[in-house]
Amino acid sequence: MQKLNETISRIERIDYSLAEKTQKRLNNLTKPQGSLGRLEELAKRIVEITKNDNPSLKNKVIFTMAGDHGVVEEGVSAYPKEVTPQMVYNFLRGGAGINVLVRHVGARVIVVDMGVACDLEPHPDLVIKKVNYGTKNMTQGPAMSREEAIKSIENGIEVFEKEFTKGINIAGTGDMGIGNTTPSSAIASVITGKPVEDMTGRGTGIDDETLSKKIAVIKKAISVIKPNPKDGLDVLSKVGGFEIGGIAGVILACASKRVPIVIDGFISGAAALLAYQLEPKVKDYMIAAHCSVEIGHRLVLEYMGLKPLLDLDLRLGEGTGAALGMSIVEASIKILIEMSTFQSAGVSEQIDK
Amino acid sequence: MQKLNETISRIERIDYSLAEKTQKRLNNLTKPQGSLGRLEELAKRIVEITKNDNPSLKNKVIFTMAGDHGVVEEGVSAYPKEVTPQMVYNFLRGGAGINVLVRHVGARVIVVDMGVACDLEPHPDLVIKKVNYGTKNMTQGPAMSREEAIKSIENGIEVFEKEFTKGINIAGTGDMGIGNTTPSSAIASVITGKPVEDMTGRGTGIDDETLSKKIAVIKKAISVIKPNPKDGLDVLSKVGGFEIGGIAGVILACASKRVPIVIDGFISGAAALLAYQLEPKVKDYMIAAHCSVEIGHRLVLEYMGLKPLLDLDLRLGEGTGAALGMSIVEASIKILIEMSTFQSAGVSEQIDK
Repeated sequence: MQKLNETISRIERIDYSLAEKTQKRLNNLTKPQGSLGRLEELAKRIVEITKNDNPSLKNKVIFTMAGDHGVVEEGVSAYPKEVTPQMVYNFLRGGAGINVLVRHVGARVIVVDMGVACDLEPHPDLVIKKVNYGTKNMTQGPAMSREEAIKSIENGIEVFEKEFTKGINIAGTGDMGIGNTTPSSAIASVITGKPVEDMTGRGTGIDDETLSKKIAVIKKAISVIKPNPKDGLDVLSKVGGFEIGGIAGVILACASKRVPIVIDGFISGAAALLAYQLEPKVKDYMIAAHCSVEIGHRLVLEYMGLKPLLDLDLRLGEGTGAALGMSIVEASIKILIEMSTFQSAGVSEQIDK
Repeated sequence: MQKLNETISRIERIDYSLAEKTQKRLNNLTKPQGSLGRLEELAKRIVEITKNDNPSLKNKVIFTMAGDHGVVEEGVSAYPKEVTPQMVYNFLRGGAGINVLVRHVGARVIVVDMGVACDLEPHPDLVIKKVNYGTKNMTQGPAMSREEAIKSIENGIEVFEKEFTKGINIAGTGDMGIGNTTPSSAIASVITGKPVEDMTGRGTGIDDETLSKKIAVIKKAISVIKPNPKDGLDVLSKVGGFEIGGIAGVILACASKRVPIVIDGFISGAAALLAYQLEPKVKDYMIAAHCSVEIGHRLVLEYMGLKPLLDLDLRLGEGTGAALGMSIVEASIKILIEMSTFQSAGVSEQIDK
């Protein structure tokens, strides 16, 4: 608990005073004022987060965290549980969606075993931070102990901190775990107070019958084990997942180091809710990459006051949306730093009225 | 007129039969079916356009076309006319928004003088295709002659064809021209049949008074010179601009060579409407990069049945939105080509119901 508490205590408010100064600078670039819209907002936010007038976002890292879920035995997913380790190996070989997209945007992906239900073969690029061999079935009792919940977040913090020593200018979140929209919907429903139905979607592509079952399973779990919405650790332990805790840890660790963190889809959104519940100041360090097809995602983002950058009907996870979003954030900083000013380019300014 | 007619006659219907085959291939990649949403749609469309199963989008080119507008003397813009050549020089020095963004996405920009109102200093990277020294004031009569309208489109075709010999896998449009939202709104209103008020926005940032004047100017021009909505060349000549004609030419030339064309904002949208009016088949070669803040843009895209990729409150033009959109299109093709299949990665497929 010490690492978690220390990390949270280091999270400062971002420096809002830098926004006005940065907007003045943006207004002096050779374009009509405000004409780059959200790119200008992003540039200001990155300056506020980093307290750096000329930040580089060259070192871009996506943390893709994997874990298994006991609740899969209730038949809530379209894919068998063995896909979790299979996809981890796919990440390590570079053949998954996230690999393609990190290469495209010039980022790198850190693959983390937070709680896959089997021992994975060692690989130089695989970070093993296994809390346990998958969570327990939440319809039967808590998914994990409170100690495991803390450990999953602290493991996430440790993964980030180790990579941070190698240089990270901007981070992104990603997930892999068959069944993990079920705990994410449960977390989102408990923390936001919205009905389970509004937070539960088709995940990897389940049919109507399975969707009804999934909603019933989540309702049952919540009613039996009663997570306390005011206690993020209680929510994580009762209806969460190890990779979800790990992502929450990465988010908190980013904020503690003034690193902007790009949030991927619905599972990352649930992890963001947990981080936000533990320390609301993290919200300003987060950039919502996209709005997922998963129905609860928009509500999760609205709850935290985050506006997604992209809306491309994605629902893959892994950090794929975060990778695309990260490239747009990087573009915003290049605009701030590389564009000429009216004066340097000899361009006339707006006509005075 | 011969070049224009020949170009139009070479535009074939895209090969819709390739969509199903490509979707099957996408379904075999290690991700839930359809989970990459619009990236999957884009990949299919690029295959349909190029008739190539494994297209590369490595050579990415934005055509940024500049021209001046006689209607500026009516006081419809927030910037003085001299900004058009000043910004052309800024493009050539690499200091404008479009330069930053093409560098970011690994594209290049071709800067074209289609009708700037002064002689520009020669520069190795400046393509001179000047039709005339700016258009005439459309409130006094046609902006240009019918011959000039044809020439502006044919010049655009020539610019594309010359660059095409150097290799272009995907193109984007861009514009520069103080006052050019005014002809764009006029074109959009005439072709779509929507009221001028619904198509006229604040351009570079005019106040309420100037906006009212701008609307009145467009209405006056349309009522006096009566462009024929069924005749794209008549619309271009009466209320258009040289850079707008040039962009329409680039769009037609792309389609004639089976090159996907990414459409930037409102001015490019007006040019796209002209190209679409001349040959509706071009629509399937177009990808709408984004939805601009400029109020008429959404209606223009809806008229052609195009759904924008991005919505980032941009209103700069130059091809800035096209550059960002192009990178997403390229990502979609990398997904198609670089991702592993379930079989090659040894990943289990969906559970049979």
